[in-house]
Amino acid sequence: MDKLRVSLLGATGIVGQKMVRLLSSHPFIELTKVSASPSKIGKRYIEAVKWIEGYEMPDTVKDLRIVSTEPEDHKDVDVVLSALPNELAEGIELKMVREGITVISNASPFRMDPEVPLINPEVNWEHLRLLETQRQKRGWKGLLVKNPNCTAAIMSMPLKPLLKYHLDNMILTTLQSVSGAGYNGLGFMSITNNIIPFIKGEEEKIPKESGKMLGTLIGDSIKNVEFRAAVTSTRVPVKVGHTGVMYLFFNSPVDAEEVKRELSSFKSLPQERNLPTAPKTPIRVLEGEDRPQPELDVRAEGGMAISVGRIRNENGGLRMVVLGDNLVRGAAGITILTLEVMKELGYI
Amino acid sequence: MDKLRVSLLGATGIVGQKMVRLLSSHPFIELTKVSASPSKIGKRYIEAVKWIEGYEMPDTVKDLRIVSTEPEDHKDVDVVLSALPNELAEGIELKMVREGITVISNASPFRMDPEVPLINPEVNWEHLRLLETQRQKRGWKGLLVKNPNCTAAIMSMPLKPLLKYHLDNMILTTLQSVSGAGYNGLGFMSITNNIIPFIKGEEEKIPKESGKMLGTLIGDSIKNVEFRAAVTSTRVPVKVGHTGVMYLFFNSPVDAEEVKRELSSFKSLPQERNLPTAPKTPIRVLEGEDRPQPELDVRAEGGMAISVGRIRNENGGLRMVVLGDNLVRGAAGITILTLEVMKELGYI
Amino acid sequence: MDKLRVSLLGATGIVGQKMVRLLSSHPFIELTKVSASPSKIGKRYIEAVKWIEGYEMPDTVKDLRIVSTEPEDHKDVDVVLSALPNELAEGIELKMVREGITVISNASPFRMDPEVPLINPEVNWEHLRLLETQRQKRGWKGLLVKNPNCTAAIMSMPLKPLLKYHLDNMILTTLQSVSGAGYNGLGFMSITNNIIPFIKGEEEKIPKESGKMLGTLIGDSIKNVEFRAAVTSTRVPVKVGHTGVMYLFFNSPVDAEEVKRELSSFKSLPQERNLPTAPKTPIRVLEGEDRPQPELDVRAEGGMAISVGRIRNENGGLRMVVLGDNLVRGAAGITILTLEVMKELGYI
Amino acid sequence: MDKLRVSLLGATGIVGQKMVRLLSSHPFIELTKVSASPSKIGKRYIEAVKWIEGYEMPDTVKDLRIVSTEPEDHKDVDVVLSALPNELAEGIELKMVREGITVISNASPFRMDPEVPLINPEVNWEHLRLLETQRQKRGWKGLLVKNPNCTAAIMSMPLKPLLKYHLDNMILTTLQSVSGAGYNGLGFMSITNNIIPFIKGEEEKIPKESGKMLGTLIGDSIKNVEFRAAVTSTRVPVKVGHTGVMYLFFNSPVDAEEVKRELSSFKSLPQERNLPTAPKTPIRVLEGEDRPQPELDVRAEGGMAISVGRIRNENGGLRMVVLGDNLVRGAAGITILTLEVMKELGYI
Repeated sequence: MDKLRVSLLGATGIVGQKMVRLLSSHPFIELTKVSASPSKIGKRYIEAVKWIEGYEMPDTVKDLRIVSTEPEDHKDVDVVLSALPNELAEGIELKMVREGITVISNASPFRMDPEVPLINPEVNWEHLRLLETQRQKRGWKGLLVKNPNCTAAIMSMPLKPLLKYHLDNMILTTLQSVSGAGYNGLGFMSITNNIIPFIKGEEEKIPKESGKMLGTLIGDSIKNVEFRAAVTSTRVPVKVGHTGVMYLFFNSPVDAEEVKRELSSFKSLPQERNLPTAPKTPIRVLEGEDRPQPELDVRAEGGMAISVGRIRNENGGLRMVVLGDNLVRGAAGITILTLEVMKELGYI
Repeated sequence: MDKLRVSLLGATGIVGQKMVRLLSSHPFIELTKVSASPSKIGKRYIEAVKWIEGYEMPDTVKDLRIVSTEPEDHKDVDVVLSALPNELAEGIELKMVREGITVISNASPFRMDPEVPLINPEVNWEHLRLLETQRQKRGWKGLLVKNPNCTAAIMSMPLKPLLKYHLDNMILTTLQSVSGAGYNGLGFMSITNNIIPFIKGEEEKIPKESGKMLGTLIGDSIKNVEFRAAVTSTRVPVKVGHTGVMYLFFNSPVDAEEVKRELSSFKSLPQERNLPTAPKTPIRVLEGEDRPQPELDVRAEGGMAISVGRIRNENGGLRMVVLGDNLVRGAAGITILTLEVMKELGYI
Repeated sequence: MDKLRVSLLGATGIVGQKMVRLLSSHPFIELTKVSASPSKIGKRYIEAVKWIEGYEMPDTVKDLRIVSTEPEDHKDVDVVLSALPNELAEGIELKMVREGITVISNASPFRMDPEVPLINPEVNWEHLRLLETQRQKRGWKGLLVKNPNCTAAIMSMPLKPLLKYHLDNMILTTLQSVSGAGYNGLGFMSITNNIIPFIKGEEEKIPKESGKMLGTLIGDSIKNVEFRAAVTSTRVPVKVGHTGVMYLFFNSPVDAEEVKRELSSFKSLPQERNLPTAPKTPIRVLEGEDRPQPELDVRAEGGMAISVGRIRNENGGLRMVVLGDNLVRGAAGITILTLEVMKELGYI
Repeated sequence: MDKLRVSLLGATGIVGQKMVRLLSSHPFIELTKVSASPSKIGKRYIEAVKWIEGYEMPDTVKDLRIVSTEPEDHKDVDVVLSALPNELAEGIELKMVREGITVISNASPFRMDPEVPLINPEVNWEHLRLLETQRQKRGWKGLLVKNPNCTAAIMSMPLKPLLKYHLDNMILTTLQSVSGAGYNGLGFMSITNNIIPFIKGEEEKIPKESGKMLGTLIGDSIKNVEFRAAVTSTRVPVKVGHTGVMYLFFNSPVDAEEVKRELSSFKSLPQERNLPTAPKTPIRVLEGEDRPQPELDVRAEGGMAISVGRIRNENGGLRMVVLGDNLVRGAAGITILTLEVMKELGYI
């Protein structure tokens, strides 16, 4: 089988490097182009990057020359993956899609656009069907698929199997790691030995994006799930892994033991089709009273599995602690898994 | 004026050292005796302690000889302050009280005893009146006064001025510092770059002790405040300062702006009587959207003030982030302030 | 007595804030002007600064309006203190000095200029006499005095009393804190749980600047002390405090016990004249085998004292571990103490 | 081929767990017995251990029952590997060796015994020949082989190829990670944001053990290499990886560029025989001016390679910064590689 040829935007950032590593051993995706900021164009990847993803750069990427983000530099690939910063993504991605390129992107613009699927593969791979609507209504020659905010990617996973209880209210406090702000996002002096109880924009994104992902594709549009939500996002001195302390109140009674069974047995299309980046167990239910912990659990299944612990009925609702790898499940891995699903279903 | 003579149990631990420092410059309390574990008896304090409280030990304590925890070693002091470990406190403190000694203690046994006042001075100094009942019913020759768990000391403060709204439900996630477990409580390997989402016993103590402190002394007993509560306590890699993300749902409507005014103008007896350890502003309301932060706020008013930020109406309730110094407001300082109140009111 | 009126360049940076705090309670220096980057001019200090120096900004500075770095904005002060970044300092400071202003500066340009005194007060206050030469030869209307690099300020202190042994070779490994790179100098992701064994420019500055400070003013010029040196500077995940592991080889025999006596009894003009910012004991000799430690020792005497431990004869030389506060002794405090000495000696 | 059956002492500690993981996928070693402290005997491994080595325990070890350290519990294995604490090791290991068991041990007793080989495989695999002497002179029925202190294991590697220059003097400052003290060795409060400039016993062990390992087996005894050494060992807030800043002075002239070639081309028997745990490049020479760094380099070749950077001629000698994984190259991996060499050479 010929490999899928992909190109990567934002290839030198922390998420871009994670994608480079994940793709370096991929069975059917081949990274053939890398793009970065204008000052790096023409350089070899190894010269353009400050490599921080593990100790050794994959050989296959070292000599790739950095190309621009102009569509003509990406005409001969099958898909463009985007790890662009949010503030640059909109214009660049749109131009590509208009010129016929398929883009799967981690960046925030268009996530809430009703004609753009916002995909967390296990949760809502069916929403890819929205691409037909997208093509008809927008007249784009290419396709645009979005992945959610890293925290929404993590927190939406255990909500999916619990939808049948009819979520009324979610009260969520997140303890988010520093890598979520990018490699240079937070100074040592500001966050070491500290907590910053605020992350700009985050508290709104989580319920909004989750509501879309958990929604149902009816006809040619998505009907978002509606629920009340109050989110407080804090930054903690942890490198990788976003933790959420989640209180859920449902319209139907829930039983914690049943919830555990439903979460731990949850499977979806990526598991059924045995896709290479899919975790075998997307939601690990941990019984240890002091779990999940970032240092012990965040790397589960290469960072693609979500860990959930401390599940308990509380105050008429359900309490659980949810942890996921914001760089893999929340960013690089989710994009690659989305690509795998799209290929599996014939979108590519 | 003659100084009050006090003796200190657990004088070499992290809370004990904090008390030693706070007392070293106290206008009317003099530390005259220090007690520690049996192997240290007879040693000079400077030899018995691994001093970690700032860079310089107060001169006045250096040559004090460590005494035992037997009552006869504490007969000639006015009050015994206890920073004993919970598991040792019950027997030692009870024996002292029975033999006529007044003990103010940080340790957990007896905190929920209906005849023992559990004092957070600004919140419930009036409960000291329970000491009359205690004396009558128990037949102890001395007095026993307890201070709350460090997190309960911090979280109960902003609840006090909000009692009039009739609290129905509190959903609280705490991010607690490592010093709360004692100087050797947690290893570097276990908590650095990590979160441990569980602290043994903590989740129950916070609402129970708060309910007692916020209660009303009616006749000769305290009627606890009743409210529903769900607490998740997590440990984070921060040295000092417990943070709580608090969602409060009341039976009466609340307005966030009014709450800010009520919290920031809150005063109580310690402020009115201008007691030396009392913070001028017990509750600091911070407007900065990213506050309170342990590194910036925990030392406010020498660690005796609570900082509250991110106050907002949410989901029909109230959200706020509460921070306090677990070693000062939560332990050493609250005990000393309790003593000051007891002296002011003539209990000593 | 009228207070000295000073103005502060770089007032919103980490060193600038430390100066603001130190000056807020100074007996005879009054901070009357603050300057910062152009975008902040005209703002009140409290609006222009992201305050990170303790929990409470001194009231006296809050309403000062930020002024420019142009000399005309600083005509009515007695002295200008500079905490400017190195890359901006040269032009700004020179312009001021030419127009008649006395500048005491922490920034690196001119430090090795033979007509500019490089002052670490206890080490070489006598070098201020070079200002007469400066005035004659340069034709500047004002005066320019420099303070050393923070590490050189710390490491040069214990070398001073040992000069009589005739230093031949210094082998120094430094473990420098992150604040030495400024508040935003290093990201959490890059230095947490890590060591970076290189700091640009640092390895050369330490011996060069130390050689000048330890030199002798002969006639109208300084004869630097010559010695061989090899320095390796590393960055460690510590907020404040630079540590040096120092091996010294002398031309005369040294005895570790004698060295301890000489270091601990070292006094200089700032101590003799009892200047307000001078530490009583500039060099603390610690006998504990595991000292000095940043968390226990860096705040000694308000950060102005150097701590030295593990003094031992080794391999025919002397080994010691030296620690100092890079923000106080190494920057803000040294500048203020220099000003105090200059006033005491009539230079201002 | 039948697998070698091994038993592991100290199987629940931090080094023991690392061995469990490394052995779980070993091509010809099978872990068949695990031993731990008496209170755990009879439990399944999964019940007896607080697992902290990655997120998933190997299935093969989960159900092994903890056995005692008595020889009769280890009769039917080929080799016993010991990760025992130093204070327990001597008696237990000696008893086993006397009863005919072959023990390869990480613990310190017997390391400097002239009849016990102290093996860092690439450095001195030839010393295994000393086992013949051991057998003759001691009359033990089994064999005892030791591995060095973790820091000595790391620092001795780059010294080996430089022996021909005739080392005269080594001045070494180490920055050692917390895991070197064991999982519970250092509290968060004591080492976070701190440096402790002393590690008990370490400063003597490094040169002594290195001198033995770098020595030559002449006839039936080892002639240690003699050189002067001064070592200062510091503990830094890093989880894994010991760094050394090394100054070497030789009797012959050395050229830094030549040193780089010699270090990077160094190979030994484990590489020549392609042993499974042997790193392909035992010494990685890094050209980046800010390398090696624990976060980027410590996992090189699974933690078995040493990283060396900042190689430079200085003051007539050579300066370099050396980094290695104290848990793998310094403990678990070195023991397994020693076993592989012993098998390869027919000692087992």
